[in-house]
Amino acid sequence: MKTYSYNKSHELFKKAAKIIPCGIYGHFSPAPLIPVSDYPFYISKAKDAHFWDVDGNEFIDYMCAYGPVILGYNNPVVESAAEMQRQQANCATAPGEIMVELADELVKTVTIADWAFFAKNGNDATTFSLMIARAKTGRKKIIRLKGGYHGVAPWTQSPDHPGIIFEDAENMLIGEWNNYEVLEDFVTKNPGEIAGIIATPYHHPTFEDNVLPAEGYWKKVEQLCKQEGIVLIIDDVRTGFRLDVRGSNEYFGFKPDLIAFCKAIGNGYPISALVGTKEMKEAASKVFYTGSYWLSAVPMAASLATILEIKENNVPEMLAEKGKKLTGGLQKIAKRHGFNLKVTGHPAMPYLRLTDDPSLMLHQEWCGECTKRGAYFTSHHNWFISAALTDTDIQKTFEIADDAFKTIKKNHPHKS
Amino acid sequence: MKTYSYNKSHELFKKAAKIIPCGIYGHFSPAPLIPVSDYPFYISKAKDAHFWDVDGNEFIDYMCAYGPVILGYNNPVVESAAEMQRQQANCATAPGEIMVELADELVKTVTIADWAFFAKNGNDATTFSLMIARAKTGRKKIIRLKGGYHGVAPWTQSPDHPGIIFEDAENMLIGEWNNYEVLEDFVTKNPGEIAGIIATPYHHPTFEDNVLPAEGYWKKVEQLCKQEGIVLIIDDVRTGFRLDVRGSNEYFGFKPDLIAFCKAIGNGYPISALVGTKEMKEAASKVFYTGSYWLSAVPMAASLATILEIKENNVPEMLAEKGKKLTGGLQKIAKRHGFNLKVTGHPAMPYLRLTDDPSLMLHQEWCGECTKRGAYFTSHHNWFISAALTDTDIQKTFEIADDAFKTIKKNHPHKS
Repeated sequence: MKTYSYNKSHELFKKAAKIIPCGIYGHFSPAPLIPVSDYPFYISKAKDAHFWDVDGNEFIDYMCAYGPVILGYNNPVVESAAEMQRQQANCATAPGEIMVELADELVKTVTIADWAFFAKNGNDATTFSLMIARAKTGRKKIIRLKGGYHGVAPWTQSPDHPGIIFEDAENMLIGEWNNYEVLEDFVTKNPGEIAGIIATPYHHPTFEDNVLPAEGYWKKVEQLCKQEGIVLIIDDVRTGFRLDVRGSNEYFGFKPDLIAFCKAIGNGYPISALVGTKEMKEAASKVFYTGSYWLSAVPMAASLATILEIKENNVPEMLAEKGKKLTGGLQKIAKRHGFNLKVTGHPAMPYLRLTDDPSLMLHQEWCGECTKRGAYFTSHHNWFISAALTDTDIQKTFEIADDAFKTIKKNHPHKS
Repeated sequence: MKTYSYNKSHELFKKAAKIIPCGIYGHFSPAPLIPVSDYPFYISKAKDAHFWDVDGNEFIDYMCAYGPVILGYNNPVVESAAEMQRQQANCATAPGEIMVELADELVKTVTIADWAFFAKNGNDATTFSLMIARAKTGRKKIIRLKGGYHGVAPWTQSPDHPGIIFEDAENMLIGEWNNYEVLEDFVTKNPGEIAGIIATPYHHPTFEDNVLPAEGYWKKVEQLCKQEGIVLIIDDVRTGFRLDVRGSNEYFGFKPDLIAFCKAIGNGYPISALVGTKEMKEAASKVFYTGSYWLSAVPMAASLATILEIKENNVPEMLAEKGKKLTGGLQKIAKRHGFNLKVTGHPAMPYLRLTDDPSLMLHQEWCGECTKRGAYFTSHHNWFISAALTDTDIQKTFEIADDAFKTIKKNHPHKS
C-alpha cells in the first residue's frame, strides 16, 4: 500500500514556526501527541468523514476536528441553515430571534435544563459554571478530578505549568475518577467550603485508558452534593449529544445542576452553551459574563439545525453502532497479527491502545502508519466517530489497519 | 417625527427572560445601560451601517455590534472570502494554509509583531498575554487600570462581583489612567514582582468621559517597563485597526511587547489575536493554550480580507473623518437647543455626554429618543463609527437628533 508524503504541509509548517508560537498550537504542541513525520499539518478541503491535506492526500477522519464535526464536514442541512441566517444577520448590535429558539430547543431537549446561556469556547461555559457555583453558594472551593480536561483557563491547569501561578489553583481540590471516598473526604475536611464539583460524565483523559463510571458512583456523588449544597457540574463538552441528546448524565442515570456543552452542538460553528436548573438561574443572572461574538446568530442557526438533525436521525445510536463496528473489526485485525488492541470509553468516542507496550510508542507508530495510508488516527487521545462515516470508509480503514500492522510487525518482530 | 414601537421585540424578550439568564446578557444586563422601552432587542436583518429589528423598524447603527463590524454588515469582499473558504474547509482536524497567511499579514502590518496567535474572544487574547508575562518573568503581579475593560474572566473583575473570589484578583494591582506616579509607586513597592502592565491605548471606560494619553505618558511607561523587565501589554480589542493599522500604540508613539486584537479584525467573524515581539515568543510557546474552534479557517479568511480592506481604503482615516463630521454636527444641533454635548475619546469611537446633568439620565433619555426615531445610540458606552456610514446616514441622523432634542426640551424645560 502506498504511503503519503507531506512536502507542502511540512514546508508550510516551517514557515509557520517562525511567525506562530509552536507553529500550530493545541494538540500539535508543545509536545506533539503524534509522530510528526507521519502526519499532515494543513487541510485544504473537508467533506463528510473525509478531508484532504495541502499535498492532495485524502484521509478518512477519525477526529471530527477534535469533536465538533459530529454530522460530517459541510453537512448540507447545517450549512443551509447557517447560510439563510448569514444572509440576514450574524454578529450585530443585538441578537436574533434564533437565540430564543435555540434556548427553547435546549430546554426542551436536555432533561435538567430550565435555561440556556451561549458563548464561544467550551472553557467559557466551564468557567461560567464555576462562577455560578461560587455566586450561588458563597463558597470558594471547587473539586475537579485528576486527568479531567475542562479547557485552558488558569484554574484548569496545574500551578507548575508555565504561566500559571499558585493562586490560580489555590481553591481547587483534585479528586480521582470513580473514587467516591476522596470526594467524601474533601467534604468532611472542608465543611461548608465547597462550592462545586466539576467532572466529565465518564473519564476520557489523554495518554490513559478511558473509564466509565462505576455502578452507583454518580448517584452517590449526586446525593452528596444535594446533602451538602454543592453545585454538581457536568462538563459535557466532548461527550455532549454523542451519548444521549438529553445530556450524557441521562445515559448514566443521574442529575447535575449545570451542564457545559460545546463541540457537537454546532457541527463546527463556534458555539458553546451552559444549561442549568431553575435553582441556578438567579446566580447565573448575577454573574457578569459576556463576549464580543456571543450573541452572533449564524452559529446559533447552525446549532439549532445540528441538534434537530442529531435528534431526528438518532445520531447517538448511530455513532455507537459505527464505533462498535470499527473498533471490533480493528481488534480482530490486530489479533490476526498477534497484537492486542484495547478499546475503552464509549463507542462514539473510543480510546484505543496496543497493549504490552507501556511506552505507548508501538501504538503511536501504528497510528502513524495508518494515517500515512489514509486513516487519520491519533494515538493518545480518544477518537470521534462521525455520523457521516460509511461502511465503505470502515472497510477501507480495515485494509489500511491490516497493512499498517504488517509494517509494525516487520519493524518489531519480537512485539507480537 | 414618528417614533417606533417594539411589540415583537418586547414579547420575544419576555419569553427569553424565562429561559435565558437576564434574557439577553452583556450590555443589556444586569443593569441595562439603556432605557428599555426605547430600544429594540432582536435584529432580523443587517446591511452596511443599518439594521432592522423584528418589528420591521430600520436603524442607522452606531455600535457596529459593539465593535466588530468595522466595514459594515454583510460586506461583500469579506463575505466572499469567507464563503470561498467555507466551501473548502472551516473547523477541521488541522488548520488551513490561511492560518499561516493571516499570521504573515499581521506580522507585516503591525509594527511590533514578530508572531501572531489566534483565538476566539478578546478575553482569550488578554488572558494569554497575562500567562505569557508570568511565564516570561517568573513573577506573579499584574498592573491593570481602574475602569479598563479586558473581558469577563475572573482576573478582569473585582472580587466583590458575584462569582469572583479574593484569590482571582489577589495579584492584580489597580492603577489609574494617565497616572504614571502610581505605576512607579507599584514598581517601587513590589520590586522584582511585577510581571506585566495591561492597559488600553487610551482610556475608554463606560459611564465616564473617555481620556487620551497625556503627553509623554506612554513613553515613560514603556521606559519603566524596559528598565524593570515588565511586559507591557496593550489591549487593542476595541481600538485595534480603528486608530492605526500598525497598532494603536503607533498612533500614540510607543512600543509594547504584546498586543491583543479582536473585534475589528474579523468584521463580525469570531476571531481574536495576540501578537508579540520575538522576545516573547519562547514564553508564548511554553504556555498551554488552545480551544475547539481556534484553528477554524473561515474566520481567518474573513480576517485576512478585512485587514486588507482596512489597509487598502485607509479605514482609520475614513472613520476619523466620519466621526468628526457626525459629532461636530450633533454638537451644533445640541447648542441650538441650548444643550452642551461633550465628545471625548477618538473620533472613530466617540464617547458622548450631555453635560450639566451628573445623573446622566438626560443624556440617556436623549439617546433613547434618537434610537426610537432610527439612530441607534447607546448612552454610556463609546460608539463605533462604521466605514459603511454614508453622508445621507449622517444627515438623517442630524434630523433625528434635532427632533429628539425638541422632545427633551419639552420634557425638561428648565434643563436647557
